[in-house]
Amino acid sequence: MQRIVVLAGGIGGARFLRGLMSAVPDADITVIGNTGDDIHLFGLKVCPDLDTVMYTLGGGIHEEQGWGRAGETFAVKEELAAYGVGPEWFGLGDRDFATHIVRTQMLAAGYPLSAVTEALCARWRPGVRLLPMSDDRVETHVMIDDPEGGPGARKAVHFQEYWVRMRASVDAHAIVPVGAEQAKPAPGVLEAIAAADVILFPPSNPVVSVGTILGVPGVREAVADAAAPVIGLSPIVGGAPVRGMADKVLAAVGVESTAAAVARHYGSGLLDGWLVDSVDADAVAEVEEAGIPCRAVPLMMTDVDATAAMAREALALAEEVRA
Amino acid sequence: MQRIVVLAGGIGGARFLRGLMSAVPDADITVIGNTGDDIHLFGLKVCPDLDTVMYTLGGGIHEEQGWGRAGETFAVKEELAAYGVGPEWFGLGDRDFATHIVRTQMLAAGYPLSAVTEALCARWRPGVRLLPMSDDRVETHVMIDDPEGGPGARKAVHFQEYWVRMRASVDAHAIVPVGAEQAKPAPGVLEAIAAADVILFPPSNPVVSVGTILGVPGVREAVADAAAPVIGLSPIVGGAPVRGMADKVLAAVGVESTAAAVARHYGSGLLDGWLVDSVDADAVAEVEEAGIPCRAVPLMMTDVDATAAMAREALALAEEVRA
Repeated sequence: MQRIVVLAGGIGGARFLRGLMSAVPDADITVIGNTGDDIHLFGLKVCPDLDTVMYTLGGGIHEEQGWGRAGETFAVKEELAAYGVGPEWFGLGDRDFATHIVRTQMLAAGYPLSAVTEALCARWRPGVRLLPMSDDRVETHVMIDDPEGGPGARKAVHFQEYWVRMRASVDAHAIVPVGAEQAKPAPGVLEAIAAADVILFPPSNPVVSVGTILGVPGVREAVADAAAPVIGLSPIVGGAPVRGMADKVLAAVGVESTAAAVARHYGSGLLDGWLVDSVDADAVAEVEEAGIPCRAVPLMMTDVDATAAMAREALALAEEVRA
Repeated sequence: MQRIVVLAGGIGGARFLRGLMSAVPDADITVIGNTGDDIHLFGLKVCPDLDTVMYTLGGGIHEEQGWGRAGETFAVKEELAAYGVGPEWFGLGDRDFATHIVRTQMLAAGYPLSAVTEALCARWRPGVRLLPMSDDRVETHVMIDDPEGGPGARKAVHFQEYWVRMRASVDAHAIVPVGAEQAKPAPGVLEAIAAADVILFPPSNPVVSVGTILGVPGVREAVADAAAPVIGLSPIVGGAPVRGMADKVLAAVGVESTAAAVARHYGSGLLDGWLVDSVDADAVAEVEEAGIPCRAVPLMMTDVDATAAMAREALALAEEVRA
């Protein structure tokens, strides 16, 4: 059985995983999920990326939206607002609340996040092993201008505040994964990477999703040292992110929003192969010059079949570079 | 302005208060609420009696049911059950959840329950000052037979488990207000009692509602020493509780389920007057022999007008005994 490890963010990672599972239904897939965008809201621990993967693969996702639960209602949120308790900009639905209540209660009882995630997945049966990147708290903050702080003043805001409330409408000067230096990979993370036959970077955000996972001490090294080929799929198509606002956070780390620039950002020390979209075929040569085998194939996850085809291309490139 | 202090349980207390406010709309009413049936569920602090008073007087109550919110939905509870997380026997609705989330968050931030209750009431504007009997944790437990423990074995269960899950279907051997000995009256409780013109015991449960409030060290003494007349309304009509299962917990403290026995249970050291229902007119002499002035009047809270009439009778008896 092919052992595949996927470093996944939220919506893009989850949709890619669905395609991957369709392409290789018998594979043994371990997902290392980003927890850098976790946030405490209303006293509850919310793990947006883990939940998006769990709900998507478990059949509970709001399909059009890509996050949150299908058939969701918002009575709790409306009531909290009636009490004057916010934030109102974060869309927690009633069904979703239950997940956070169970998680928070288990964490308070002393279970690590990895054990809590396993318990939640016992209900959702996502068909993959879903591991948080770390049981330790890592919280991505974004440095932005502080208009109230005088000329040149900056302040840090939680990633969710930047992404959801501000919709990345101002420049990000830096991305700061608070707590990352002290974090340890969750149990099973390094072992899964070492034992993998293939490691995939889905078209997730290279800075605040895959980058945050790689930033947990030991993970980047484990991926670089892994025997398995590491294949990435570009989240940038035709010079713009396929979804989300990845260009904003790429700029913060000095990376152009092009398929080739993201490949060079990961680097040939990490990547053994890179897929760009067909419209970026002229980037192939540039990526290969950087020492990374590259192919141009359709990379739009328009449906499960198109996504499965992308996954097959990634696995084919892995076979090719392995040979 | 007449200062009235009411020691209130849940449904009965809340409905009586609505009648009282209708009878004397200009009165300055302080409600000392029972918190002995508070319970921690799903990591959240739930205060059933305080909420029932707050929702009832604030216009948010489920009228037929007498507790919980009007227009309630149960998405969170259904989801928790899907995770295998209970208890399922306690009916927490989505709207209600928001109250407990706000309360739990404020308590975690260090606010005492009295301040939290005031904050919640800022939304509901119940028209009374609602004080928890104590900011300290007091939890009523009920001693019952333990069928699994061998002959004569007993065990303690939380009052809510006895009342809601078991529906008081087995005998209660004792009522144990865990934590009561160490509890202090909440800020304002003793002051309100001392400054009252009238103190009322609504037809709430004399053991697990009014009795629990009186069991907070200092409260019984303050009520007994108060200058104001103390007038109670019998929750027992015709030998049975008007609602609920008060007979079960009265038996546990060795008190018959009669209007006269409950009056004697409170005693002439506490009560300056007692109202029994018209059907219990023959109990008047027995109560007065125990040194407690007594009148027989209609005591069924069938609607707000009937309840207002009861409140007026209680206030009239207070005037009479004061003179």
